[in-house]
Amino acid sequence: MATQFDPPSGTRDFLAAEVEKRERAFDVIRSVFTSYGFEPLQTPAFERLDVLLGRYGDEADQLVFKILRRGEHEASGEADLALRYDHTVPLARVAAAYGSRLPSPYKRYALGPVWRADRPGKDRYREFVQCDLDTLGSASPLADAEVLCAHHDALAGLGIGEFRVELNSRRVLAGLLDAFGVPAALGPEVLITLDKLDKLRPEEVMAELGRRGLDQDKAAEVVDVMTDPDAADRIRDALKKSGEGSAGLDEVDRVLSLVAPRLPPGRIGFTPRLVRGLSYYTGPVWELTAPGVAGSMGGGGRYDHLIEQLGGPDVPATGTSLGIERILSLLPGAPARGSDLDVAVTVMAEQFAARSFGLAATARAAGLRATVYLGSSGRLGRQLRWASDQKARWCLIYGGAEDEAGTVTVRDMRSGEQAAVPAGDLRDYLARAAMGAE
Amino acid sequence: MATQFDPPSGTRDFLAAEVEKRERAFDVIRSVFTSYGFEPLQTPAFERLDVLLGRYGDEADQLVFKILRRGEHEASGEADLALRYDHTVPLARVAAAYGSRLPSPYKRYALGPVWRADRPGKDRYREFVQCDLDTLGSASPLADAEVLCAHHDALAGLGIGEFRVELNSRRVLAGLLDAFGVPAALGPEVLITLDKLDKLRPEEVMAELGRRGLDQDKAAEVVDVMTDPDAADRIRDALKKSGEGSAGLDEVDRVLSLVAPRLPPGRIGFTPRLVRGLSYYTGPVWELTAPGVAGSMGGGGRYDHLIEQLGGPDVPATGTSLGIERILSLLPGAPARGSDLDVAVTVMAEQFAARSFGLAATARAAGLRATVYLGSSGRLGRQLRWASDQKARWCLIYGGAEDEAGTVTVRDMRSGEQAAVPAGDLRDYLARAAMGAE
Repeated sequence: MATQFDPPSGTRDFLAAEVEKRERAFDVIRSVFTSYGFEPLQTPAFERLDVLLGRYGDEADQLVFKILRRGEHEASGEADLALRYDHTVPLARVAAAYGSRLPSPYKRYALGPVWRADRPGKDRYREFVQCDLDTLGSASPLADAEVLCAHHDALAGLGIGEFRVELNSRRVLAGLLDAFGVPAALGPEVLITLDKLDKLRPEEVMAELGRRGLDQDKAAEVVDVMTDPDAADRIRDALKKSGEGSAGLDEVDRVLSLVAPRLPPGRIGFTPRLVRGLSYYTGPVWELTAPGVAGSMGGGGRYDHLIEQLGGPDVPATGTSLGIERILSLLPGAPARGSDLDVAVTVMAEQFAARSFGLAATARAAGLRATVYLGSSGRLGRQLRWASDQKARWCLIYGGAEDEAGTVTVRDMRSGEQAAVPAGDLRDYLARAAMGAE
Repeated sequence: MATQFDPPSGTRDFLAAEVEKRERAFDVIRSVFTSYGFEPLQTPAFERLDVLLGRYGDEADQLVFKILRRGEHEASGEADLALRYDHTVPLARVAAAYGSRLPSPYKRYALGPVWRADRPGKDRYREFVQCDLDTLGSASPLADAEVLCAHHDALAGLGIGEFRVELNSRRVLAGLLDAFGVPAALGPEVLITLDKLDKLRPEEVMAELGRRGLDQDKAAEVVDVMTDPDAADRIRDALKKSGEGSAGLDEVDRVLSLVAPRLPPGRIGFTPRLVRGLSYYTGPVWELTAPGVAGSMGGGGRYDHLIEQLGGPDVPATGTSLGIERILSLLPGAPARGSDLDVAVTVMAEQFAARSFGLAATARAAGLRATVYLGSSGRLGRQLRWASDQKARWCLIYGGAEDEAGTVTVRDMRSGEQAAVPAGDLRDYLARAAMGAE
């Protein structure tokens, strides 16, 4: 049940445990990308409306969150800004704005939220983190291989053990249609249907190909060869008959020869039926999938003219996008609460409050996470319960007896054992205890 | 000159060096807050319009970025969502939504962008990071002292050496007005004027007090006592005549007794003329200022009824807000470019490309930042220039000679010296070299 205090539809509040889980994953991803020499880019949450609209077709434009003009213009009901829909349009704008002041090639990653007014559903949000890795300015297959390897290493670094990299080329697809005699005019629609082979049964795909106007014999042949796991040789033979097909095959083999030796055996393979929806790809395309996981954990490919179409300079480009929200959903769930306290400090009486406050600072100086009791009870039992609720590893007690003796009572919250530690030794004592506790 | 490729007015693109500078600072801040037992909270970029509007008065409402309704409702020109204006309204919503599922007290920090349609200017942006630290559910002065110390430690951790913590209490202000016989009805306006004593000359403030209807003798007396650096005793004496003033003085002294011993001598002091604009404060208030820096590096105070006014539960609350953008502007400027590469790997010929690709992976396995050459030149000179442009520490060369000898040529880019390293030893060699280079 949605209540008036829920976040807006399709968005989420992240409490401590969830933030920590997400940030840990983001740190792994950033560190892999950095090790490959990619650098971060952060752009504003919103762009001017004219920068954003009309870039991906009407359907995407419908999903853009538009921002109303302000002040005297608000009454016009018009928008002049819009929340970013992805990281690619901002990248094109930055490439145009900074030009030669950017490194060449420009290898950047972007990791941050994007917003789409999609119908919310399981694993589909209106605010979600998107993580893109792109190289502008290199036409080399090494650039394709590099973003693909970095994507792979990020998933491996996150502990996602079971996944597969499916590799194809847009030119292979063109070559296949050519080799099987599919009329050029039907090409794009045939590809969209073939893309559904991972979701629909072969008969359903054949029927849809028929409805799209493809001859049934051709449809049967194409579907047969694309669903036959042992058809790789047949497909290779067929591709060699087409100039575009041969070029595509070379492209796939080149990337395979670079990437496969770096990955566990069998993790990457040539997948001729991989289409990857968007039409802007111009060369190799790939997708990372896991058995039993619907959809992909991201993918990408070469898109040599898109940056220009989006308003940037005409540079060769290749990139990959990590399906972060899906990846996060595959990682072990966040615990019910965030990180625990190391040290809870009681406040036994007002005259000792400053002392307790100082003890917490001493614990922090020993590298521990520490806080004082902020409640109103002066009773030790109540404060020990608080320390236990905080899952503190140790509780420090400082009252009249300790003040007289010049000691601090350190209670081990697991064993219940207590030690009287001379005040001057507390920092070392806690640092040693923390090392022993790890 | 703004161009069509600039980010929207009042927003910024952050390239690598700037992102790294900002993230380093944010990491310091997060780690200080965590050491105090504060936990992160992340809320969506936008809230429902009714949650946001009418919370801070008309002036603030004018600065809210409103999001147009979507689909068939877009034509209405109406908004239903708005970008968050601060982190306090979302905190109140979360406190209401999660209630007893939150820890008690709930100590959280929020570090993320907020958006205000203010007129952009120096250090004033429409998208800027705000960092808030708040404790809900504790009426103890220890809670005030804790957020204040954490704020202080974050600035100290960032290397901001010269700053001062000015401490006051709303009850002190009420007591002062009372003690000097300022009519209660004039109180709020008199405080707004007295708040200008750090910007205007005393005569100007007196004149403004006169225009607000305050008797000139009283105005002179108040301004005199509040601008006299040696007036602390006079003020304390005056305050003791008023019940509210005495209570405020006790409050200030209590926080001072907790905080002062933790800070360098003279860093915190009682500043009776500190007003801190917003009217919602109910107890101690503070501001962190640096000599020669206009405005403050943040501040806060106790605001016991605000969470309820904002739609949350009625809980005592205290918090502090770091003026991050100003703090960042005081830190040393970001270098012209982001972190340098450790290892640049040449690609001397297509048949060695996979090998070069593997060498970069070996360097990464040694903990280094490495990439292969992605350009189209096969000439060593050109590729060495690239390695030098990347500020790489070492360059790896692998061509026909190395292939035959089973070695890799490692070139020290500073000395120009080259070593032939057996391929199997490369990882250890680089790891050792990197240790020596640090």
